[in-house]
Formats: sequence, C-alpha cells, structure tokens
Amino acid sequence: MSKRKLPIGIIGAGRIGAVHAETLAFRLPEAAPLIIADINRQAAEEVATRCGIPRVTENAEEVLADPEIEAVLICSSTDTHAGLIVAAARAGKQIFCEKPIDHSLEKIDRALAAVARAGVQLQVGFNRRFDPNFARVRKAVESGEIGTPHLLHIISRDPEPPPISYVKVSGGIFLDMTIHDFDMARFLIGSEVEEVFTAAGVRVDPSIGEAGDLDTALVVLRFKNGVIGTIDNCRKAVYGYDQRVEILGSEGAVSTGNCYPNQAVVSTSSAVRRDLPLHFFMDRYAESFARELRAFVKAVREGSPTPVTGMDGRVPVVMGLAARKSHDENRVVRLEEIR
Amino acid sequence: MSKRKLPIGIIGAGRIGAVHAETLAFRLPEAAPLIIADINRQAAEEVATRCGIPRVTENAEEVLADPEIEAVLICSSTDTHAGLIVAAARAGKQIFCEKPIDHSLEKIDRALAAVARAGVQLQVGFNRRFDPNFARVRKAVESGEIGTPHLLHIISRDPEPPPISYVKVSGGIFLDMTIHDFDMARFLIGSEVEEVFTAAGVRVDPSIGEAGDLDTALVVLRFKNGVIGTIDNCRKAVYGYDQRVEILGSEGAVSTGNCYPNQAVVSTSSAVRRDLPLHFFMDRYAESFARELRAFVKAVREGSPTPVTGMDGRVPVVMGLAARKSHDENRVVRLEEIR
Amino acid sequence: MSKRKLPIGIIGAGRIGAVHAETLAFRLPEAAPLIIADINRQAAEEVATRCGIPRVTENAEEVLADPEIEAVLICSSTDTHAGLIVAAARAGKQIFCEKPIDHSLEKIDRALAAVARAGVQLQVGFNRRFDPNFARVRKAVESGEIGTPHLLHIISRDPEPPPISYVKVSGGIFLDMTIHDFDMARFLIGSEVEEVFTAAGVRVDPSIGEAGDLDTALVVLRFKNGVIGTIDNCRKAVYGYDQRVEILGSEGAVSTGNCYPNQAVVSTSSAVRRDLPLHFFMDRYAESFARELRAFVKAVREGSPTPVTGMDGRVPVVMGLAARKSHDENRVVRLEEIR
Amino acid sequence: MSKRKLPIGIIGAGRIGAVHAETLAFRLPEAAPLIIADINRQAAEEVATRCGIPRVTENAEEVLADPEIEAVLICSSTDTHAGLIVAAARAGKQIFCEKPIDHSLEKIDRALAAVARAGVQLQVGFNRRFDPNFARVRKAVESGEIGTPHLLHIISRDPEPPPISYVKVSGGIFLDMTIHDFDMARFLIGSEVEEVFTAAGVRVDPSIGEAGDLDTALVVLRFKNGVIGTIDNCRKAVYGYDQRVEILGSEGAVSTGNCYPNQAVVSTSSAVRRDLPLHFFMDRYAESFARELRAFVKAVREGSPTPVTGMDGRVPVVMGLAARKSHDENRVVRLEEIR
Repeated sequence: MSKRKLPIGIIGAGRIGAVHAETLAFRLPEAAPLIIADINRQAAEEVATRCGIPRVTENAEEVLADPEIEAVLICSSTDTHAGLIVAAARAGKQIFCEKPIDHSLEKIDRALAAVARAGVQLQVGFNRRFDPNFARVRKAVESGEIGTPHLLHIISRDPEPPPISYVKVSGGIFLDMTIHDFDMARFLIGSEVEEVFTAAGVRVDPSIGEAGDLDTALVVLRFKNGVIGTIDNCRKAVYGYDQRVEILGSEGAVSTGNCYPNQAVVSTSSAVRRDLPLHFFMDRYAESFARELRAFVKAVREGSPTPVTGMDGRVPVVMGLAARKSHDENRVVRLEEIR
Repeated sequence: MSKRKLPIGIIGAGRIGAVHAETLAFRLPEAAPLIIADINRQAAEEVATRCGIPRVTENAEEVLADPEIEAVLICSSTDTHAGLIVAAARAGKQIFCEKPIDHSLEKIDRALAAVARAGVQLQVGFNRRFDPNFARVRKAVESGEIGTPHLLHIISRDPEPPPISYVKVSGGIFLDMTIHDFDMARFLIGSEVEEVFTAAGVRVDPSIGEAGDLDTALVVLRFKNGVIGTIDNCRKAVYGYDQRVEILGSEGAVSTGNCYPNQAVVSTSSAVRRDLPLHFFMDRYAESFARELRAFVKAVREGSPTPVTGMDGRVPVVMGLAARKSHDENRVVRLEEIR
Repeated sequence: MSKRKLPIGIIGAGRIGAVHAETLAFRLPEAAPLIIADINRQAAEEVATRCGIPRVTENAEEVLADPEIEAVLICSSTDTHAGLIVAAARAGKQIFCEKPIDHSLEKIDRALAAVARAGVQLQVGFNRRFDPNFARVRKAVESGEIGTPHLLHIISRDPEPPPISYVKVSGGIFLDMTIHDFDMARFLIGSEVEEVFTAAGVRVDPSIGEAGDLDTALVVLRFKNGVIGTIDNCRKAVYGYDQRVEILGSEGAVSTGNCYPNQAVVSTSSAVRRDLPLHFFMDRYAESFARELRAFVKAVREGSPTPVTGMDGRVPVVMGLAARKSHDENRVVRLEEIR
Repeated sequence: MSKRKLPIGIIGAGRIGAVHAETLAFRLPEAAPLIIADINRQAAEEVATRCGIPRVTENAEEVLADPEIEAVLICSSTDTHAGLIVAAARAGKQIFCEKPIDHSLEKIDRALAAVARAGVQLQVGFNRRFDPNFARVRKAVESGEIGTPHLLHIISRDPEPPPISYVKVSGGIFLDMTIHDFDMARFLIGSEVEEVFTAAGVRVDPSIGEAGDLDTALVVLRFKNGVIGTIDNCRKAVYGYDQRVEILGSEGAVSTGNCYPNQAVVSTSSAVRRDLPLHFFMDRYAESFARELRAFVKAVREGSPTPVTGMDGRVPVVMGLAARKSHDENRVVRLEEIR
C-alpha cells in the first residue's frame, strides 16, 4: 500500500457530507479531502473551514474535472446520485455514493453500466454493515456459531418522522427507510430474497398517508436458502432510535440490543430505569460511518473490491419496489416481477 | 363466597392432568379433587396417591355421573375434548377444558352449543394469559402505558420437536403450537384478527415435513384495529424454551424476556454468560397453571364469567386453519373464509 | 427411605411459622404437620385451619411431650429458641430452629451441648443458602468455575426498617440482619472468618440510633484462606429488597442480581424501565423456605447430617458480636476475642 | 472565546502522550499541538508524523522555553512530573499533568506552590471523571435523583498485572491504581474522606509481593458527610477491565456496568453469553481522554478554573499513603495522620 494520502473530493456538504468530511479530516490519516462542493456555497465553506479542506466550489463538475482528485464521495440529494455516478465514472474517479443510488432501476442500471465500462470502483453507503453490533451478528452467522439460519427479525424504528416536505420526495418508506434493512437482511443472511409480503399502514401521522406514503410497515422476506425474515419499521418510537436484529439458527441464536449513552441504572421507589437509547443515526451509527469510509479508502488504495458493491445498491431498490407492490396488491410479490 | 371446598373431578392423568391435580391438592385450599379418571388406571392411581385424591376410575363417565362433583377438568387427549364437554354440560358440571377444544369447528360449535344450552361455565386452558410476564404486558396495553398499540411480535419456540407419532395426531403446528400464540395475540391486543399471512417451512426435521406438517413458521396478523403482528414459531431452539413478546405503541413499547432458573452471571476469560432459560413449559409456565385454576375455581364459586371463554377457545382454531390455508395457497387469508 | 410421612410439630404461628406450616401442608408430601403451638391461640388456630393441622395448643411443652411427634420446628421469638432446643433435645425430637439460636453465646453453647448429648439433629434456619441464585454462586465457587476466590461482596438491604419496638429487642442490626449475610459469607467461600472491621452509622432513622442500634453498616471480613469480603447492609432501600452477591476468583467472577415479579421492560419517552424487585423476603425467598424444609425433612428421614448445623448457627453470632465490637472500638476485631 | 487555536506542547510520547497527541490533532479543532518531546526521539517522531506535529525534541526544556507554546501536557514518567510542573509554572505555561503528580507530598506541595505563585492553571489527569458513565452517576448524586448518599462501592480491576519492573517503580498499588478510585470517590460523593481502613493481600502473583507491593485490596472510606465507601481493586480480572460504581442514597440507588465492544448476545445449547467487556483503559476510557483535554483547552482559553485542580491531585496521594499505612498497621488511619 502506498503511503501517499488518497486525494478525495466531496460532493454535497449536507449532514452526511459533513460527517464524511470530518472522518476524512480527523480520523483517516490515509486520506486527504481536497475539495468540497455544494450548491449552497456557505454550507460547503463551513465544512471546509472546520475540516481544513483547502478548496470549495458550487459545482460538482469542478470536483470531477480536477485531475488531482482520485476518489469522490457523492453525498448530494438522491436525485443527483445516478447522474453523478455516470459523470464520475467517465472522469475515471473511484466512487463512494450514498444510498439509494436512485429510485429508478433504469437510472441505476445506467449508472452501474457506466461504472463497469470505466472500470472504476463503486461503494454504496450502506453504513450499518460496519456497525460493530451488526458486524458481530454477521460473524455469528458466517462462522457457523449459530448453525444454519432459520429466522431473521430486524427492528428499525425512527424516533420521529421526517418533515412532510421530505416524505414527499423520499421515494416512500420502503426506498427511504426500509432500504437499509433490506441491505441488512441480505448482508446478515448471505442469501438473496425471492419474494416479499408487506403489511403496512398509516399509524403515526395521517399527513404521511395523505402524501401517499406509509409510516408503519412489516415486511416478510423469503430467502432462496429458505430463511424467513421480517422487517419492522415505524417512523416514530417515542423512546428513540430502535435498531435491533435477531437470528435463530440450528445451533443457537444471536441478537443485538440498542446502544445507550451510558450504562447507568437508577432505582427509585417507582422503577428501575435507565436513560433512553442514543436518539438517532448520527449518534448510533457514528462509528459505522467512519468504518465504511476507512473500508472505501482501503479498497481504493489497494485496488481491491469494495465491500458494498453497485449490485448491493441495486437489489434493495428492487426489494423496496416489491414491498410497495405487495402492499398495494395485498399479496406476495416475487422479486423477479420487478423490472 | 362459600367456604365450602369446590368438589372437582379430573379426567386425564397425563402430564397436564397431573399438574392440575397437584395444584388442586397443594396450592388451592378452596378446591378438593375427589376423583381422577384415566384409561390408563395406573397413571391415575399414581397421581391420586401423590395428591391424596380419594377415588380413581378408568371411565370418564363415572366422573360425570358423580352427583357430588361440581366441576370437571378435561385433560384427556384432544380428540375426546368436544365429546366430554357435551357430556359434562349435559351432566350440569362446570367445565375446564385443555386447549384446543377440537381441530374441527363443527365439533367445537356443537360443544359450545351444549355448554350454552346447559348454562354451565366453560374455561379453556390458555394458561399463558396467567403468566406474570404476559399479564404485565397486557396491563401496559390496557392501562394506556404505551398508548395505542401499532406492532406486536410474539416469539414462541420449543426446545425440541415432539415425537413424530405425536406430530401426526397433533393437528399440525398451527393448531398444536401456534394456537397458544393466537390466543396471546388476541389477549394482548384486545382486538380480533381479520386476516393472516403465513411463511413457513420444514427446517428442523425432514420427517416432520414427511408427516405433512411444518416446523418453522412466521404468521403475520392484521387486526381489526389496525395493529400488525407477527408470530415466530420454531419446533427447535437449542438454548431452550423461548417465549417472548413485544409491542410498540404510540407512547412507548413493552417487551418481555425469557425466564431463568437463576440470576447468576459468570464471567470468565472467554465470555460473560448465564445459564440457559427454563427449559420447557412445565417450568416456564408453572405459575400460570396454578393461576388459571385459581381463576377457574373462583369463577365457579362466584358464578362469574370465566376469564377464557368458549369463544376464546374457538377463534384460535379458526386462526390456525386460516394460517395453514395461507401457507398452502401462499396468499393472505381472511378469517371469514374459514367456516 | 421410609414412605411414612414424618410427623412434625410446629412451635410458633407467626409469619415464619405460618410459611413453614404451608410448606409442610401443601408442598412436602413426605411430612405431616400434626400440631401447632402458639401463646396466641387464635394465630395458631388460623394457621391450623388453613393448613389442615389437626391439633392446636398454647403450650410448646405439649408439642414436645407428644410421643407421636418426631421433629419440631421452633419458630417462636428468639428469646425462647435456646430453651426450646434444650427441651426438645431432651425429648428426643429432631429440631429445626429459626435463626438466630440466641444472642448469647453461653445460651447457644448450652443448647448445642444438649443437642449433642441427646444425639438429635439440629438445623438452623439460614434459608438463603437454599435460594437458587446463591446456590448457583456457591456452585461456581465449589466447582472451580471461577478458580480460587479472592474478593466477595454481599449487598443486603431491606426495603424499610422494622418498627422501633422490634429494633429494641432485635439484638441489633448485626445479630438481626447481618447474621444472614455472615452465614452467606461462610457458605459461599467455604472458609472461616478470622477478623472483621465495621464502618457503620445511623443514616435512615435517628430513632434507631436512639434505641442504641445502627441502620447502615459495612462489615469487612478477612477469611482464613485469604479471601477479603464486604457486607453492605442498610435498613432502607426505597426500591425494595436488595439481595446480591458477587465473587471475584482467579479464573473468573460470578454475580447475582435481584429477582423481579416479571421480566417486562417498558420504554417511554422518558426512560427504559422495569418494575421494582420483589419487595421483601417472603416473596424473594419463598422458594428457599420450601427447600430448606425439604432438606430438613430429608435429613431426618435419612438420618443424615443437616445442611445447616448448630455450629453454623453459632459462628454468625460470634461474627455479629465481633462486628459490633469493631464498630464500638473502631478497630479490627479478631473472632477469637469473642468468648 | 478567541477563535485562535491554543498552541500546545507535549512532554512525553509514551502511550498516554500519544493518545493526547491524537486527540489534539484529530478531535480538538480548537487546539494545535506544535511540539512534542521525548528522551526517546524515535517515539516522539512517530507520534509527530502520525499527528502532523511540526516539531520534535529530546528536551522537555525546549518545549518550556518556546514562547509560542501556551500550554503543556506533562505525560512523562511520574518521577519527572513535579519538577516539570515547577519549571512549566515558572515559564508561565498552563499545565495539564498526568496522575499522580508525585508519590511525595513534599514534592507535590512544592509543585502546587510554584503553580500558585505563577498564577497558571493546572489540571491533573483524572480522566475517569469525564467518562459518560461515571459522569451520569455523579449527576444522579448532584441532582438529588437518589437523595442523600449513604453507601458507595467502587470496583476497579485490571485485566492483568503490569510487568514487575513497572510494579517496582509504580509507587505501589494505592498510588498507581487505587489513586484513580480515590479521585472517583471524592468526585462522586462530593465530600472529603476522613479515615480509611485497608484489607489487602497478594493473591495474583507472589512476585508482586516480593517486590513489596500488593495486588488485591479492599479500602474502606469514611467521608466527612457520613458516607461509607469501599474500593475493590485487583490486578487481575481474567474477563477484562472491570470498572463499576454504585451508590445507595436515601431516595434511590445508581449503578454502572461495564462497557462492551458490542451488544450482541449469543444463545447456544450451553449458555447465553456475550463477548468480554472492553479489555483495558485505552478502549474503555477513550472518550474520557478526549473529554478531559477538551475541558482543559476550554478552561485555558476561557481562563476559567480547571475541573480537576492541583488539590484534586494532592488528596488522592494522601489517601494512598493512608491506605498503605492502614494495611501495614492493620488499623483505621485518619487522613490527618499523613503529613
């Protein structure tokens, strides 16, 4: 491995772009963020100042045109992902792109084709695979510690719903929220899903329903290897971010609980209690964001495959479309029905 | 309430009959077991000796014909339940009957009609409602502690499958095992299920499949009040009896863990560990068996409604038939389809 | 083992006498409680009625004089224990006596001498040894699971202090409350204590101090085998009965938590909480009371040594006297100083 | 607060010096590490390269003589602390010094006098106060959540003993290991200790005893406000770093458990288990090291008092000397005996 720092450009200085910029600046000595782009120049400048990034631009094109830049992080809004992947691939950049690649399979396929043609690397931002808890669960499956898996449960609930304005452009709960869980399901079980069944509704906020979306969903997964799984999503868990999985296997079971800001337990005359879990993903998954970037930088520097490929970015979108179709038609939907 | 002990006859001296006999003899001063019947006379005699029950017979009819007996516990094999209910009702006895009443709705309806005609009380043996853990969960729902329920999960796994000979006459996993969970779902949510969807398979033992049954099942429930639930069943959890529920509501969540023989935690150089959960239902639900009988005896002595009615015995059978149909046809089945 | 039921007399129909009567009547088929004595005849009659004990008396002597009675349970007030042991021994009865035998070593020694002379069995009511949690901890030590023990901690706190009237005749916190923990320390470590150091005070209620007693105490134990232990006592833990131990050994550690009425966890917008632990000893140690009597009855019927001997009853009194002396003189006290 | 970065010099590039350098470089944008000194030049250079520190020296004096440097971190060996504090104070630097300041009260007092004379700030490296768990416990006390504290327990065990070469110069277990717990005791209770009693021994490794030190210790603390506390130390807990506290108060109790690398629980046919706790202080207290430096930089930039003062550094040394004296003389030692 070369000791040279990997020169990186960041496209998008929103919440997740800022997180990645900080990781590159403060936690990844082997990478150097050299330029950051955002149509909101002020946002980009703030991140650049905090993280010591030398150059700022309003144009993503400027990042892609810079010959010094070897890799780009695409952290802009979802509707720009596919186009930027195509452009970045043509520019010969190694690509890290936030999830989802797009809501349209056609656009995803065009982007993946461009990546393949250019022979560049692509990693999709399914950060939760890098969470120490879920990584440990995967290890329990992969190592045979719990034998052959039979049943999987994923619980994934947000502390509160996003604004309706966001809901309307989010692609719907299955492409915006469940998509992480679809990825998790494939990652943990190591097999593909063949068919899905959805039972869902609007329980949290009627305006989410009026926007054509759902806020509470239960998706059943049938894997090729016979495993049966469920994903439980809700846009509102008043106690905070609820992120758990469990798997039953032929030789045992593995499960993970939530993460807490401290281990303190207080007993009073009314209850034995502890503080609420970490409230949302920026806290809960802080470590995973750093680890996914480290893995990306390592893959680029070594020229080895990225741990979350373009196909890993495509399949969960198929699953999300199938889950919605299952809800709409109240029937089992096979993934091969989704084109 | 009269101070006179309630004179009870027991029909069936198998495992569960013996448990009830011991409860009556040693833990329920307000009841008196006077006679026990079993076609296996030796089994009946052993129980009678241990519990100080004065009379033993091979004929259930002898119990029903005894004018001194006010209430009977029907603990014989499932195929005899409906007929004995009819006969006991005709004899004017108050009736406690183990679950399920029968696998045939026709026979169940005949039994319930006989009970109604005779004006006697009937309690069905869904003991888990009386488990302190599930009772606490129900309380969290009923009291509004967690607001309006949205999502329910029931995990219910046996430590090991029954013998194939039993599997063959069991009525299948949905009527033999899931039936308890169907009752639990109705009990906890306090609403009826409208439709079910089943994803199931044979994962534990191929000979269960050869016998026409399933050993691993996931059933999705849609309740009239909009709650979505899942039941996770497996005939084999190597770590022991796994009996948990959790409910997400608008104002919070409630969950229960397994029960253990002790609270000791041992930390060594390889792991932080505890002993396995209580192995099976006789240990796990010991307290609930005593409490359900206490409730039955109380209802009879007070002439008040039993806490688990004949209709509570019928509905889970409908759900079980619907779950199987859903599996067979791989589609959502509405309960009203089951006649 | 003979199949004949062991004929038992009970002396004392207070709280603990009633518990033992119920165990004998409802949970120990191999024993028969035939007579119960209490100076408060009504108390004795109530217990007798509930437990089906045929005879009632106001005179303990009547129990001891009954040739049919083989074993007696001494459950009367502490000041009567030693005298009753002597009388029971002379009468040739096998003896179960509640703790402590007495507060005076002289009287204890007289009682033990009478027992030795008569060649009868004596078991002292240190019930906690029979608690499944502490039994599991002992097993971890005895089996070598945690290697050689180094450090022991016992936490033993009451939910609330007894009435001052009781405090005044209790013998003081060390002979009334800590005495159970002294026994537990010896039981768990399997070695004798050589010296103690006490740091204690009045924190809960000044009137306990005015009565010459303490309500909060920390006793350090030095065992002959080099183990160092602590006992933490407080007369008031607002969250309920707090009964825990932990041991560090060369190959690991073992600890036990409290026992709860249910396993339910409720998460709301303010906390993740569970119900309070079992409130006091009648609930927390219910199982241990039954198990200690079963062990006593078994020892008597088999003629084997009782699991808690007269010497096991004596040593904790020595420890309690030493602990008080250590407090009074604010120095380490060797047990051999106590005569 | 000025936006200028605080220019810092680091003296000592060993384990803890490297940790602080990384914090300054990657996690504290408001500070700038400009120079690092170590008699082992190569060690200093390695840290400098990794953290982008521009200058390296073998002489601590060079750091102190640099007019650009406003604050120094003293991370060299303990025997150099007091002298460096004096020199740094004379040079007008703000000072962060690792614990302990020295093993000699005379030298400590000379150092504190120099600090007072120079009017510079001094923070002592009791990092555990900044651990989120212990901070939460302190909050429970300070806020009145558990009422008036009565009893305190601190468990503090290392995964394995240091090399004998280190033991010999460590100042002994009380000044090397317990010193953190003495600070924690004062911090949590918010009152001073008046007297101590020690029960200790050599249980882990005889060569520790041959070096004149102890490896297993129980120290009892009596606070001015009447609280009674214990500190449990052992140089070897095979399951890893064991760092817990609990406090009983008049209105409740608070306790903290250990920290784990993940939340996964694995259930197999032999046990329900989880991975071992974080192995040692670099992992367990990673967050606290960053937080203490942030607090120091903040105090310096704001000119406000540091959260851990010179007196906070002195008192635990007095406690350590008293604890050793108590062990040697097997008696209670008042802190005022230590001069």
